[in-house]
Parts: sequence; structure tokens; C-alpha cells
Amino acid sequence: MHQLIEQIFRGTFQTQDASPPHDAAILPVPQGGESLAFTTDSYVIHPLIFPGGDIGKLAICGTVNDLAMAGARPLYLSVGFILEEGLSMETLWTVVQSMQRTAAEVGVSIVTGDTKVVNRGKGDGIFINTAGIGAVAPGVCIAPQYVQPGDAILLSGDLGRHGIAIMAMREGLEFETTIVSDCAPLHQPVQALLEAGIEVHCLRDLTRGGLASALNEIAEARQLNLTIAENLIPVEGQVQGACEILGFDPLYVANEGRFIAFVPATQVDPALAILRSHLPPDSQPCCIGHVEEADRSSLGTGRVILKSRVGSRRFLELLSGEQLPRIC
Amino acid sequence: MHQLIEQIFRGTFQTQDASPPHDAAILPVPQGGESLAFTTDSYVIHPLIFPGGDIGKLAICGTVNDLAMAGARPLYLSVGFILEEGLSMETLWTVVQSMQRTAAEVGVSIVTGDTKVVNRGKGDGIFINTAGIGAVAPGVCIAPQYVQPGDAILLSGDLGRHGIAIMAMREGLEFETTIVSDCAPLHQPVQALLEAGIEVHCLRDLTRGGLASALNEIAEARQLNLTIAENLIPVEGQVQGACEILGFDPLYVANEGRFIAFVPATQVDPALAILRSHLPPDSQPCCIGHVEEADRSSLGTGRVILKSRVGSRRFLELLSGEQLPRIC
Repeated sequence: MHQLIEQIFRGTFQTQDASPPHDAAILPVPQGGESLAFTTDSYVIHPLIFPGGDIGKLAICGTVNDLAMAGARPLYLSVGFILEEGLSMETLWTVVQSMQRTAAEVGVSIVTGDTKVVNRGKGDGIFINTAGIGAVAPGVCIAPQYVQPGDAILLSGDLGRHGIAIMAMREGLEFETTIVSDCAPLHQPVQALLEAGIEVHCLRDLTRGGLASALNEIAEARQLNLTIAENLIPVEGQVQGACEILGFDPLYVANEGRFIAFVPATQVDPALAILRSHLPPDSQPCCIGHVEEADRSSLGTGRVILKSRVGSRRFLELLSGEQLPRIC
Repeated sequence: MHQLIEQIFRGTFQTQDASPPHDAAILPVPQGGESLAFTTDSYVIHPLIFPGGDIGKLAICGTVNDLAMAGARPLYLSVGFILEEGLSMETLWTVVQSMQRTAAEVGVSIVTGDTKVVNRGKGDGIFINTAGIGAVAPGVCIAPQYVQPGDAILLSGDLGRHGIAIMAMREGLEFETTIVSDCAPLHQPVQALLEAGIEVHCLRDLTRGGLASALNEIAEARQLNLTIAENLIPVEGQVQGACEILGFDPLYVANEGRFIAFVPATQVDPALAILRSHLPPDSQPCCIGHVEEADRSSLGTGRVILKSRVGSRRFLELLSGEQLPRIC
């Protein structure tokens, strides 16, 4: 079985490297003063296949997106599988083909991998780890510490689709039309912003904990207040309805194809135009708020402030209690 | 719990990068014409802690050794944890400290990581994935295709300790003294060989499937015959005894701190002297055989030939049937 799997993977992933398994891949170093970006994530999502994707697509997009959020061009991926004994080969095949299709779409190479099999009842079908190497162009400095007072906060699209697609499947909820995960690679819109000379200060994809967690992490890291307006944040009607049924706030629900960008207020219009031309037509990139000038009021610093639809203001807190388990 | 874990990891691993979790680490590119080596492995060993190591030490050594076998200096590691709900914090703490201790000993930095928690009964305590980036000096070409007819085959030490240490624990076997895993990082002896100008053609660590599998993979990849002598292969007495009780052949048992090196026959003595000075005193590096001249006999090519103690010759086949499960 192990050899069969290795053959499936090696046949599908078209590794550049023809050497036997368990060796390291040997790769050229990025040139021209670039830096390396390096990241990893494990994927344990349940169910393995969902509307809009599967654990394989997610494992490629998730790691590509972590690289993209550092301003890196994704170059190489590693893949580690932990398979549960008894997994159907059809499921594995679906997942592996989805990984290769997504990697090809992104233009990233799967260059090295590993497979382990655990006894039945000691895993759950398929767990995947991907690690990724990217190249960061000289002068690209994208991180919370570069966020500036006055920066605009752009959101790349509507919220909550991934988390609600998974929860609706798990809970057996049915809607007029199926809610489809937003799972997608995000490096193209990011590279387009950078190539157009948009001065991107910070990027963050809105995965576990959603928009609220991403904003809070950045506000706290930079010790500046962020103000966003609820009425500017797009949430699709069925997603909103499902959130009400399930008792979730869409601002905290996980996405796998949405990000926020901090850019100078003067660059909002060109940045949004670029995002619109590099994102699917149904995502609605928009400006949802801004970074406050250094605060001397009683609000303190490092907080996220939500202006509600009725005009009141409240702190948007970090999620306390359990996040949705195994959403990615 | 998730935040606690992140704090444990980030506190222990002393990441150079102070940015919040889920970003990519930004790293300098190797200079001077070096190439990148990139590798990954997942570790699902059972039990988690064993004589001579634990899953954490194994996860660092395993990936460092894969880099070393490509002739690379290990630079950076990523770590992905999949934890089963209900795991004791004491066990996690033991494993995490062991990882940091081993990484520090190797001089490799753990620069990025991820943690997922799965429900009880959907994992088995701790699974770890590590991916590693190394730098390969210009001119270093170490792979099966560089093996030459006439090359000597060096073995870095006695066989079978890791696999038998694990199996003895699982089976509750007791010996006069505890059999201790050979789990160890191997980059130092490899770098010492390279720095001394030894013309290393190929390296392979003897993990899953042991010496017999490593030799068969190389013989097949290079389509040359390899001849080794059974009486030259060191196996410690208690390991040999345990193999007899358990019905294992030590040539197929997994090791986590042993490797073979293919070097020109003229460099055997200096290479062994270097290995002896860079390996623990109880490992017994030795020359166990050689690569045959291109074969025109009836033996075919791409085979491994074992000269037994009584002087007979037989093919050492690839393992058919099941390998020991969850040995690494």
C-alpha cells in the first residue's frame, strides 16, 4: 500500500526531482536580493470534501496564502500525508488530484513529500501538512509593525462562506442554494498590488477566528486602534441567515479566500480597482475602515472598534471560548 | 488551550521572528552559489517516548538527517503539531523541550510552526511534521546517480537499535540492559567528510526498511550491483538476540542515527578516521562492501548481493510484506 501511495503521489505531483523518496529536493536559490519566506500548516478539516473544495485544495491554498500574506511569490511546497488505515483510495485520489490542480493553477511546485499510515481509529481519514517556500522581493516589508495611523483597511470580499459551508454540511442544514466555500489562492491579487506600486503595509488572511481575530492581532501587535463600520462589511444573505440559525457572528467565522490589506488612504481607489480585476466577480472588495491616529482618549490602544449599523460604537473583542474545531 | 500551546511553543522555540502566528518567517537567502535543499517528514511513532529519545527528538533528527543525506547544512525547520484532545500537558512539554534541545545541539532554527487539535479518538497523542531547509555548497553532488563502480560502501555504526528499542517496549520484552535507540543527528559527520575533501558520491540514512532497503533503492536507481559481507556488519549482541526472538532480520530494521556513504575505494581509510572522530565511541563505522564493476554476468544489474558468514552468496531482496508500523 505504501508503495502504491508513493506512486500515486509521485505520478501526480510531477516532482522535478526524480530521485527516490526520502531525499531532500535540491532547488535553486532566489536571486536578485530576494529573501526567503517559509511557513507551514497542518490541515485536519472534517469533512474531507465540501462544497467549493476539499482538504487537498485547502492544504495548497492555505500555505500559498500564508506566503502571499508575507508578500512572497510562492515557489515550492512540501506535502506530508498522515493516512488512516482503511481510507478509500477513491477519496485519496480525489484529494491528490485536487492538490495538483490547485498547485498548477498557482504555479507552485510540490517538490518533496512523505506519507505515513496509522492504524484505524488513530487518525481520521487524511491529515495533510504543507510547508511552503516563497521569495520576497527586496524592499517589500509587510507585517503588523508597518501599519501606519491613517491607513485604510481593505477587505477582499464577503465573509463567512468557508466556515458556514463546513458547518452547514456537518449540521445537515439545507438552503435554497448550496453555500460554497471561498477557498482560493490569494497570491495573484497580492502580487498585482505590489507590482502596481501600492504601498502595502500589512496583509492578513482571515482564517481561524475570522476578521475579528485578524484585526485584533494586528491592533494589539501595533498598539493602534482600528475602526471598522459594520454596514461596509459584505456578508452574503444565506451566510447571514445560517449564522443566525447556528448562533455565529460572521465577523468571527473562518474564511479561506479572504484577506485584509492595510494601505495608505490615498491609495484606496487604485488598490480596490486592482483587487476587482484580480478577484472573482462575486467577491466584493471594499474599504471597511481605517487605522486611528495615535489615541490619547479613554479608549486605550490596540483595540478594534466596530461602528454598528445604528451608529453605536463597541469594542470588537478577541473570541473567548471555543473556536469552531477542525474548520481547516 | 490553543493559546497556551502557542505560548509554550513560541516561548520554547525562541523563534527569531517575533511576528504573530500564521505568518511566514522571513529568512536570508544562502549566498555564494549554494543551492537550497528542502525536505519533509511526518512522525507518528508509538510510543511517544522511548529509550534514547522521543517523538520530538526524532522529528528534529529525522529531517536534519534527510538534509544531511543531500550534503546540505541544515538551516531552518518548520514544525506542525497535530494533538489529540486530552493529551497530557506534561507529555507535550517533554516533547517540546526535547525538540528545542535537539535543534540547539544541531544549530538549526525552528522558525515557523502550526498547531491543530483533533477530537479524542481521531489522533493518537502527538503527530509531528517537520520540514527543513538546508544549503548545499557549490560542487556538492550527492545522489544515487553519482555512485561509481568500485566505490566502497561505508556504514556509520551498528544496526537495528532504534527499531528494536521500540519493538521491545511495545512487546514488553526485558533484557539485561535496556536497548537504547540510535536516534541522533548526522549532519556533523557528513559535513566533516565534505570539509576534508572526501569525494562522497551518495549518502542514505537507514530508516524505514533499514540497510537492505537503502542498498536496494540505490542499486536499482543506479543499475549497478552492490556486494556486502554479513560478517562486516556490526549488530550489537542484545539487538541480535531480540531480532531472533521477534523474528526480524537486523538488515531490515529501522535506524534513526545510521547512514551509508559511497566513497572512492582509495578514500576508505581517511573517511573512516573522520567518521570515528565525529561519531559516538560506541558506534563502529566500517566498510561493509563495494559497488561491483558493471556486471556482464548472469546476476543481472541493480541487485544487492550478501556474502554470508559461511561464504555463500545470495540476493538481499527488498522487503516484501509489511514493514514495522509507526516506527518513526
